[in-house]
Amino acid sequence: MRTFVQEREWEPFHTPKNLAMALSGEAGELTELFQWLTTEESWVIMDDAAGAEAVCDEIADILMYLLRISDLLHIDVAAAVANKMQKNAAKYPVEEFRGRARRYIEHP
Amino acid sequence: MRTFVQEREWEPFHTPKNLAMALSGEAGELTELFQWLTTEESWVIMDDAAGAEAVCDEIADILMYLLRISDLLHIDVAAAVANKMQKNAAKYPVEEFRGRARRYIEHP
Amino acid sequence: MRTFVQEREWEPFHTPKNLAMALSGEAGELTELFQWLTTEESWVIMDDAAGAEAVCDEIADILMYLLRISDLLHIDVAAAVANKMQKNAAKYPVEEFRGRARRYIEHP
Amino acid sequence: MRTFVQEREWEPFHTPKNLAMALSGEAGELTELFQWLTTEESWVIMDDAAGAEAVCDEIADILMYLLRISDLLHIDVAAAVANKMQKNAAKYPVEEFRGRARRYIEHP
Repeated sequence: MRTFVQEREWEPFHTPKNLAMALSGEAGELTELFQWLTTEESWVIMDDAAGAEAVCDEIADILMYLLRISDLLHIDVAAAVANKMQKNAAKYPVEEFRGRARRYIEHP
Repeated sequence: MRTFVQEREWEPFHTPKNLAMALSGEAGELTELFQWLTTEESWVIMDDAAGAEAVCDEIADILMYLLRISDLLHIDVAAAVANKMQKNAAKYPVEEFRGRARRYIEHP
Repeated sequence: MRTFVQEREWEPFHTPKNLAMALSGEAGELTELFQWLTTEESWVIMDDAAGAEAVCDEIADILMYLLRISDLLHIDVAAAVANKMQKNAAKYPVEEFRGRARRYIEHP
Repeated sequence: MRTFVQEREWEPFHTPKNLAMALSGEAGELTELFQWLTTEESWVIMDDAAGAEAVCDEIADILMYLLRISDLLHIDVAAAVANKMQKNAAKYPVEEFRGRARRYIEHP
């Protein structure tokens, strides 16, 4: 990605603020692929060639922008995930959250 | 993440459709961190301890949901990125796009 | 909203770019309210007092940012909707699209 | 919109959960229009015919989905906005927040 951006002289566009927006836009495109699907249809989206290609492309776009912003901000993504997993484990104790996800209401 | 979800019996919540929504929600939270910052402030967001922690947490949340949905849909994320990079190289030839990013208007 | 912003001297933050980000962030928050709900649960979200308040607040936040960006860019939102409705009617003829929504695949 | 949806028999797609996703996707498209623009360019986006049309279309899409989900959930959007404005006035007292917006850090 560094090379790709340098060759096109796109560095001025790739500010952390702009990349956060771009990542958000790609996440919106992923959401659009699933918005009219039932849960059951969402499980078999990869069985359709056009659906599979679209999902893979959006996943790739999101990951590329995620790594690009992390590169520019010097974020170690593996360490960030390990750290957040620990926070989540403390925030959602197994006994308390078994069978219920986070919701707008914490007492389902 | 597989273990984390299994321990809490959250599998019913983790459908591809729901995970696309969750990823989009976390991307929205990343965007919120940058929305009132100037470009200059966005470059130094990591210099502030609270800002750095918040950015790392959102980056981690996005990546975790991205890997989770990819795991469930059997997507090879490295292959997806390599494939999309090739598409992007064909779509944005260096000579034609030097110095100008994709825009709402293709003739800046 | 004009008065609210003026009183707090927030005009420098309310650029069209920043407001697009803020709207997107609020849309992400609305999505988060629904992400772990089944379709059936999403229909009765207003029966729960906490759920109803959260949905109303996010709907309000989105609408406020939508009107604010439209005000600053001199957009007539009623005209914009009327115009887009006409485009949609032309894009989705009744006979061709009866019973099927837009999808990643146009031939369900 | 009610008529538009009924004519196409799209009611099964228009669940509150799906409409929240659709609204989020359209907000992502609005964000994409601004993502590579400088602040200055974002102020004059309406001077370009293609930019103006794109912005108006996205604003319309967002508002239509917002009104549609509010209609289905029996939300009075005017009351929701009035109520949220009061909450915001209490949350952001003029004296305390003059000249500084909400941020990841509350002490700029």
